[in-house]
Amino acid sequence: MNRLFHVPLSPFCRKVRLCMAEKRLEVELVEERYWEQDPDFLRRNPAAKVPILKMDGKMMADSNAICEYLDEKYPEPALMPRDADGRYEVRRLVAWFDDKFHHEVTSKLLYERVNKKLMGTGYPDSTNVKAGAKAIKYHLDYMAWLLDHRRWLGGDVMTMADFAAAAHLSALDYISDVDWNRSEVVKDWYATIKSRPAFRAILADQVPGFPPPAHYADLDF
Amino acid sequence: MNRLFHVPLSPFCRKVRLCMAEKRLEVELVEERYWEQDPDFLRRNPAAKVPILKMDGKMMADSNAICEYLDEKYPEPALMPRDADGRYEVRRLVAWFDDKFHHEVTSKLLYERVNKKLMGTGYPDSTNVKAGAKAIKYHLDYMAWLLDHRRWLGGDVMTMADFAAAAHLSALDYISDVDWNRSEVVKDWYATIKSRPAFRAILADQVPGFPPPAHYADLDF
Repeated sequence: MNRLFHVPLSPFCRKVRLCMAEKRLEVELVEERYWEQDPDFLRRNPAAKVPILKMDGKMMADSNAICEYLDEKYPEPALMPRDADGRYEVRRLVAWFDDKFHHEVTSKLLYERVNKKLMGTGYPDSTNVKAGAKAIKYHLDYMAWLLDHRRWLGGDVMTMADFAAAAHLSALDYISDVDWNRSEVVKDWYATIKSRPAFRAILADQVPGFPPPAHYADLDF
Repeated sequence: MNRLFHVPLSPFCRKVRLCMAEKRLEVELVEERYWEQDPDFLRRNPAAKVPILKMDGKMMADSNAICEYLDEKYPEPALMPRDADGRYEVRRLVAWFDDKFHHEVTSKLLYERVNKKLMGTGYPDSTNVKAGAKAIKYHLDYMAWLLDHRRWLGGDVMTMADFAAAAHLSALDYISDVDWNRSEVVKDWYATIKSRPAFRAILADQVPGFPPPAHYADLDF
C-alpha cells in the first residue's frame, strides 16, 4: 500500500494528494508532525520535511520530484503537456506558486496563523499577516490575467500548475484568507477544480483547534 | 542570439550557464542588478528574479523550468536520466541543493557576505554566517556519502544534480567558504567537474570589490 506522510494543510502535501487522487492511486495518509523531529521520521527523510511518499518500495521526498515521477510512471490522466513549451510553462507556474506565492502569501498567512500555534512557536506576527493579505491580491489578479487568456492556468487543459495553485489556495481558504469576490474567473476556476472527485478528501480535512468555515467544503461557495 | 539575464555568483544562474555550455548552446550574458527593480527588467519578468533566458523568441523564468526545457529541446548530451526512477533521484537532488542547501548554506554565507554589500543592505549577520559555516559541513558529508555509493551525485552518469551542486559550491568557493579538505571524494568530484569545458566561463567570473582567491580558478586546487 502506498503511504503518504503529510500534514493536512501543507500545500505541498495537498498537491501530491490531488495528483494521486486524479490518477486514482490509492494512498494511506499518515499525519507527520515533522517539527517534533521524531527519529523514525528523520531516518525516513534526512531533509526533515513533508510530504514523504512511500511507494514501489522507496521513500520519496520533494513534492515536485514526486509529482513528476507520478506523471511519468502513471501517465493517465496526464498532468503535464506533451510538448516542451507546454511543459516549460507548467513548470514555471508550479515554481511560481511553490516558490513565490509560498514565500509571499502562504508562509505569511497560513504559517503565521496556524503553523505557529500547532508548533507552539508563538503568536502571529501582524506585519507578516498584513504583507500576506496584501500580496494575495496581486497573485489573484495575476491568476485572473492568466485565466482571461486561457481555460486553465497552464493552457487549454488542466495540469499540475492548477493543482499547485489549488493546493495553496485551498489551504488558505480553510482559514478564510481568500477573497473569492475579487475575480469572477478565479472563482469559476476554483469552483471547477473544487468539484472534481480528486478534491473530496481535501475538503474533508479537519485540523483540531481550527474548524473550517462553512464555505470551505461547499461546492457552491 | 540567446541572451541570459544573470548575476555572476547566483547559483541558479550558474546552473543554467553550465547546462547551456555543456550542450554547446551559445548565449550572451547580460548582468542584471535585479534588486534595483529596473522597470524594463520587471516588464521582462514579473517574478523579478534571475535567471531570465531569452530564447526561441520567449522570455523564460525559473532555473529549474529552464533547465528541464533545455534538456528536452536539446537532448544531447543528456543531463537527465532516461528512466523515471533516475529522473526522480536527479530532481530530488536538484531540489535538495536549490532548496535546502540554498536555505541553510548559500543564503547564510554568500548572501550575507556578498549580496548584502552589493545591494547596500548592511553588514553580514554573524549568527547567520556561523549557522551557514556549520551547515555546509553536514552537506559536504552528505555529498561524500552519496559519492561513496555512486560515481556522480545522481547515479552513474553526470546529471543536472551535479550542476546544481557545483553551481552552489563554486559560488561559495569564490569567497573561500568551502573546506575541500573535509572529504577526498567530494574534492575529486569537484576537480572533475571543474575541469570540464562547460566550467570555463564560470571560473573566469570577476565580481568588482570581491577578487576571487587564487585557488578558485585553479584546476589543481
